[in-house]
Amino acid sequence: MNILSLFGKRSQSASVAKNRLQILLAHERAGNSDDAALISSLREDILAVVAKRIDIDPDAVRLEMDREGDVTTLGIDIELPPSAARAS
Amino acid sequence: MNILSLFGKRSQSASVAKNRLQILLAHERAGNSDDAALISSLREDILAVVAKRIDIDPDAVRLEMDREGDVTTLGIDIELPPSAARAS
Repeated sequence: MNILSLFGKRSQSASVAKNRLQILLAHERAGNSDDAALISSLREDILAVVAKRIDIDPDAVRLEMDREGDVTTLGIDIELPPSAARAS
Repeated sequence: MNILSLFGKRSQSASVAKNRLQILLAHERAGNSDDAALISSLREDILAVVAKRIDIDPDAVRLEMDREGDVTTLGIDIELPPSAARAS
């Protein structure tokens, strides 16, 4: 199974050149337990640290969560303004 | 271009069932400037927040950085112990 088909589809439309940051989390468990809570916590934490580095418009963030078998994926797609890196 | 071929290759070997967390950062710029520094900072920050949630063995972390055209990708592959979620 290609766990990244979700993200792959997205990258095609991204070929219209825009500044963007895409983050994909894939959590694969040997066992079969629910890890949505972990992924959800990681999402919050990661968005927070990204926002410290980059000027993010919350409206320009798309999230997509998917689960197939033992693999939970979370896609975060952030459209960046032309000059988004924070001076620091 | 499929920016995720790197990650895709990796996910095949991951089909030997193991608990793992994979993170892919893809930074695509409309312009052509160097964003290795940004990706590198994000890598540190993201590893730190993941380590807060999950018990990570530093030896079980693989990093791969790649650059093709205007897209910089960073793959983080973390092998997790069977029960890795931190009690919190």
